[in-house]
This record gives sequence, C-alpha cells and structure tokens, in this order.
Amino acid sequence: MQKIYNPNKNNWSEILKRPTQTVADIEENVLTVFNEIKTEGDQAVQRYTKKFDKVDLDAILVGSEEIEEAKKLIDQNLKDAIQLAKSNIEKFHAAQKTDKVSIETTIGVKCWQEKRPIQKVGLYIPGGTAPLFSTILMLTVPANLAGCKEIVLCSPPNKEGKIHPAILYAANLCGVTKICKVGGIQAIAGMTFGTETIPSVYKIFGPGNQFVTVAKQLATKFGVAIDMPAGPSELLVVADDTADASFVASDLLSQAEHGKDSQVILVSTSKEMMNEVEKEVAKQLAVLPRKEIAEGAISNSKLIYVEDDQKAIRLINEYGPEHFIVCAKNEDFYIDNVTNAGSVFIGNYTPESAGDYASGTNHTLPTNGYAKQYSGVNLDSFMKSMTFQKISKQGIQNIGKAIELMAEAEGLQAHKNAVTLRLDSLK
Amino acid sequence: MQKIYNPNKNNWSEILKRPTQTVADIEENVLTVFNEIKTEGDQAVQRYTKKFDKVDLDAILVGSEEIEEAKKLIDQNLKDAIQLAKSNIEKFHAAQKTDKVSIETTIGVKCWQEKRPIQKVGLYIPGGTAPLFSTILMLTVPANLAGCKEIVLCSPPNKEGKIHPAILYAANLCGVTKICKVGGIQAIAGMTFGTETIPSVYKIFGPGNQFVTVAKQLATKFGVAIDMPAGPSELLVVADDTADASFVASDLLSQAEHGKDSQVILVSTSKEMMNEVEKEVAKQLAVLPRKEIAEGAISNSKLIYVEDDQKAIRLINEYGPEHFIVCAKNEDFYIDNVTNAGSVFIGNYTPESAGDYASGTNHTLPTNGYAKQYSGVNLDSFMKSMTFQKISKQGIQNIGKAIELMAEAEGLQAHKNAVTLRLDSLK
Repeated sequence: MQKIYNPNKNNWSEILKRPTQTVADIEENVLTVFNEIKTEGDQAVQRYTKKFDKVDLDAILVGSEEIEEAKKLIDQNLKDAIQLAKSNIEKFHAAQKTDKVSIETTIGVKCWQEKRPIQKVGLYIPGGTAPLFSTILMLTVPANLAGCKEIVLCSPPNKEGKIHPAILYAANLCGVTKICKVGGIQAIAGMTFGTETIPSVYKIFGPGNQFVTVAKQLATKFGVAIDMPAGPSELLVVADDTADASFVASDLLSQAEHGKDSQVILVSTSKEMMNEVEKEVAKQLAVLPRKEIAEGAISNSKLIYVEDDQKAIRLINEYGPEHFIVCAKNEDFYIDNVTNAGSVFIGNYTPESAGDYASGTNHTLPTNGYAKQYSGVNLDSFMKSMTFQKISKQGIQNIGKAIELMAEAEGLQAHKNAVTLRLDSLK
Repeated sequence: MQKIYNPNKNNWSEILKRPTQTVADIEENVLTVFNEIKTEGDQAVQRYTKKFDKVDLDAILVGSEEIEEAKKLIDQNLKDAIQLAKSNIEKFHAAQKTDKVSIETTIGVKCWQEKRPIQKVGLYIPGGTAPLFSTILMLTVPANLAGCKEIVLCSPPNKEGKIHPAILYAANLCGVTKICKVGGIQAIAGMTFGTETIPSVYKIFGPGNQFVTVAKQLATKFGVAIDMPAGPSELLVVADDTADASFVASDLLSQAEHGKDSQVILVSTSKEMMNEVEKEVAKQLAVLPRKEIAEGAISNSKLIYVEDDQKAIRLINEYGPEHFIVCAKNEDFYIDNVTNAGSVFIGNYTPESAGDYASGTNHTLPTNGYAKQYSGVNLDSFMKSMTFQKISKQGIQNIGKAIELMAEAEGLQAHKNAVTLRLDSLK
C-alpha cells in the first residue's frame, strides 16, 4: 500500500484516480450478439450459451422440480440467515415508501405527484464460484414492495446446465416471476428485446463482468433503463486513533477480495493508526483464501495521512466512495458533512460486510465516483414518479393570463391558443 | 390524421410507433468536438462557437451589465407572469421534500436514508427564435430547493454574440451561478470536462436538438449523469363525448407546433367526437403562425377509436405518453389505472400548456415511451439518496452470525472475517 502524507490539493485527482478499465474494444462483439438475439430469439440465446457457457441446454426456463431440489440442498442455518437478512432489508425499504404529494398551487389548480411501479424489471445475477444470492434479496425486496408486476431473473448455467441452488432458493423465496438460465451479453440482450422464452423488461438491475457492463450500456440505446453505471467495488475508511486497527484492516481486505481492480483507501489523522493498519493488513492477508486477488487490489491502494478532519472530509467528498466507514471520535462531523458517498458505516462495530448482507441497507451502490450524482438502489429505483393536475374553471382564470403571456413570449401561439379558447368560453 | 377503428392488439405496436430518428452518423463528429474541448478548453469552445454560431466572442461568460440590460428589456406583465409560474413551481416542488427515513431493523442496528444535493449541476437551454425561459424555471427551482451549490447555464449566443434577454432575466431571477454563452455540442463538452471558464458539473439537464442529445449521451460515458434520454415531444388525449372538441383540437395542435417529429394521438370511445376533433384541427391549424411545422406533426398523428375505457387504458399504457390528457366522464378510472405517463392533465379546463408553464408541475418529462421506467424531472432529480448505518456491540451480536453464514456461502472469507474479529473481541 502506498503511503501519502498531507497531499497537496492539486495532486488529489491523481492520488484518488481509480484503476482504469477499457471496454471500447468489446463493444462491437456485444452489438453482434444483440443483433442476433433480436432477430433469432431463443435460437441465438442457446447458440451463445453453448459457445460461452459450454453447455447445450434443453430448456432456458428453470422448472419447478429444479427449485424443489435446490430447497433441499440449502442448509437450514443458511435459510435462517437469509430470512433474517430479508426481513431487515424489507423493514428498511418499506420505510422508504412515500405518500402522494398533493397541493393546490393556486386556487383551482390542484397538482399531485404519485409514484407507480415499473411494471417489468429484470435482474442479472452472475454465476461462477461465488453465487451472489445476497444480490437477489437486495433487488427483489424493493421490487416487490414497489409492486413491480413481473420480475425476471437471468443467471448463467454451469457446465452441467444448472444454476447454483442458493440462487434458485433465494429467487424462489423472493417471488421472482421467471428464472432463466442465461448469462452474460445474451441475458442482457434477451431482456432488452424479449425472446420466445425471456420476457423483455423496462429496467435491468444487477452486477456483472465487463461484458455485462457493456451490454447494459448498450441496452440503454434500445430504450431499456439500467440501475446505474458499473465499476469496480471500493471502500474508503477514515480512522483516527480511536479506531481498532485490526477491524479497519479486516474491512479493507473484505473489499479487496472482490477483485484485483477493487480499490481501498485509508484516510487517517493518525500516523500511528496508519502504520498499525498496514501491519494488520499484511498479517490478515497472509491467511486469506482469496489472497491473490486481495493482494492485487491492495497494491493499488493507499494510506493517506491528513492533518485534520476538515481536510479529510474535503478529500473524501472529492473521491465519493461507494462504501465509507467512519471510525473517528468526531463521527458526527463526518456524518453531517459527507456529500458524496454511497453508503456510510459508522463506528467500530459496523463492518462494511454488514451492509452487504444483513443490516437492511442496499448493497447495490454507485462506484467510480458516481456517488456524486447517483443514488444507490432503493425503493424508488423500482418506481417512477408521475405528476397529475386538475384545473377548475376558476383555476384557469387564475393562471390563464400568465400562460398566454409566457407562451407568446416563447413564440408558441398554439400553446397560447389552448388557453385562450378556454378563457373565451368562460366569458 | 390517420383514423383507426378498434385496432387488434397485435397491431398496437405498429400503430403506436413513434417517428424514428437516426443519430448514429453524427456520433463521430460529436466525439471530435469532445476531444478537442477536453484538451484545448476555452480555445476550442470559441473556435466552435465561431464555426457553428457564426460569432467571434470576446468573453464566454455573461457579465452583470448584460443582465442589467436584459432586465430592462422585459415587459412588466411578462415579469409578473414569470413570477406567478415560479411561485407555483416552487410550491409544488417544495412539497416533494422528504424527511430522513430512519429505523432500527434489529435491536442495535440503526439504518437511515438521507437525500443530499448534487453539488454541481449544468443546464442547457437552446437558442433560436423561441427562447425557452420556462425551462429555466423548471430546472433551477428544484435545483435551488434541493440545495445544489453550483448551477451553471449554457445557451448559444446569436450572431451578435448575445443571449435572448428573457433567458438572461429568468436565469438571473432564479439564482444561476454562471451563465455561459456556448451552445450545442461544445456546451455539453464544456460542462463535462470543464474549461478555464466553464465549470465541469456532475449532472446535465435540459432539452436540445439532435446534436445536443447525442452529446448528452456521450457525456454519460465520461462520468456525467443526464436528466433522461431525449425524444420528440408527444401528447395523447383520451376523450369521450363529454369532451369539448375545440379544446381537444387546440391541445393536439399545441403539441404539434413543437416540431414536425412531434406526435399527437387521440383515443376516443366516441366516433362523433373523433370526427369533430378532426374538423376542429383543420380549422384551427389554418390560422397558426407555425402552421407548416404543426402540419408535419399532424400528418404523423392518429385518431383511434376503441370500444370502451378498458381497452383505451391498455392501449395508453402500452404507448406511455409524455403528456396525457383525460377528458372523459370516467376520469377516475383513467387516473387510477394509468401506469405509464409523464404528466396527466384532467378535465376540460386543464390544457397541456398549463403544465408547460404555470400549474406548478415540471415540464421536463419522459418521451419516446420512457414513461414506462423514467420519472419526469422532480426535486429528487437534483439529489441522491445516501444510506447510513450504525451498529452497536449488541447489534453486531444480533446479526453477526447471519453475515458470517452468508459470506461463507458466497465464498467471501474476508467479508466473514470482518465480522468474526468483532464478535471475538466481544466474547
């Protein structure tokens, strides 16, 4: 880990630079798959599944026997853990429900705003050795609370043509409408255009590798919305001498094990704490099963000493971390002044992995500095707000003149006319 | 206008197809301008202003004398109209403020969600003969209510190097931080990368021609968010025999005058109403100053007869109109069952132009069917929601085991370890 002392503001952007990714060269391949799935449907899906996932599927759709089998394979302790997590996520997201906003802006002019569910949503869950069933909870719980009518889930099959039982178990528990054995680009293309088996959806959520990321970007060109732009996971910890160095090190490593391109940063007002964390990271890293991956990420990472909390928060807001842990005496100062962060973890007993699984907050969060302008996934991500207005005769008499004047000044005579006709009818 | 009777569901997508646009061929030009502005800054901005706007500017920034001059040029009646509109927009958007959402999901596990302002936002306002000062109200009012620190506005200069006084007046009235005389691609590139004069921003809002649309799309590749994908304006009216044909015709025409690619649709359960509206459109169209434009849009447009309200609402939700006017006996049925629409106008005295200017609702709305998954601009468009969690010793003891089990099942040992260390310290 690189140590930096009191960096000058001019160097912040260089110091805080994320590990770069280049995706331009795969765009063309992604477009080819999209075009073929658009025209050929399921046939092209199965061809690509054979090519990329090395399995020749009889059926894309997961059947009820497979789900029943999966239920038996999951240990009761894990089922209980999932239930606890689901319950906390439900409580937190249910609390986000908002009432209809309704006011009379002028006498006779009633305006209101209502949120209504996005009717069809699609979730992508990556395959591989680590089955991310926790992400299913994070996406289906708010989708159900929002009232989405159709929840489609796509996840790649393994070489035996199966999906990990934990994924099937969680998807079934959380009321997914259809589970499709399809991964990568072909999954995103399928949910964009729809095929004989895969329904088209209005918005696609969920993580994935760079092919999935590029495919999701491309999907937006075909009228589908996505949760947010993706990037490698990241964590920034601010710690003064009240922090526990071994806890901080364990948090940095939990983020580092996600991938070699993950980034972890410690900002500290204590040089001693920085040194202790560095030692603890080395010690804990040595015994990790995913040591090689974590080592890659740690080598990209930085320990930054700053003189005081004021300087620390400016640096942190400049970075805009996905995950932000505060282990400092002055924690209220950080809570009140952080403007750019995805999710904030406060105090020595709030590890980042609590938010990944079971505190109740969502773990689908803006990376890559996008915390400056994007929200993490929340209940509203599955709804859209619509506005309504109802104007009485008195109402149009109250605001009609203003509309006529403004429409005329903008050179839009027909806009004016729509009001004039109504006002004239009331004379 | 094409008349269609009782269309079969299989033909809906063909009937409801929007006029298409192709933008692929201009992407390369847009990228060139972006690259030059990224490396050369103001110098490239001024070069392109000379090329596209035919004016050689001394200064990009609008000075205070220009604003003072603009104030004098605006008629007091128009000032009063703008003030009324601004006040209504303020009332409606202020009512959208939400409180912090805070709950204890498990004893000792406190989670909360807070919305915080996007610090820097950019607004694009097109130039040309029709100065869209109303859009300035629609974007700055919620930006100010949200608490955005920096509001940058870009609008192209005319050949005399000036911006329309109504734009300067409204921008100044609404507390825009900086007004830049720069239009089109160069404006969007400037706000994306920042130049010596134009500040970089985190999110760009506002309408524009196809060059601006493509530039905004490209900006998202460089880490800037945009309000929503753009498309031509559109209106769908549902009218039964309680509607007033001349009012309906005036609303269809007010949307049609926006551009030849605008689309207006009438859905009716009354053949008589359809015929009367058709006659009224012809009559009112003949005397419009923007007749040629409106005629183009009207020729793309459709009058659709359906047997009942049930069928009508299914068709309407399939289309997902930007603006949706309801003039029907059964208006509550439409209000309750519309799932996809940007903004809804109810009753005979609620013209669409009321929402464009002065009712209080926002006129920046999803077009092109995007009402299925996007909200119109609202207070939240200028904020992002962040989550916070603070877990006590007891809290981590309550949920720690579940986190350990789930992390282990996902193969993420370091995630588990961050909890195990803390639980062990409490033994």
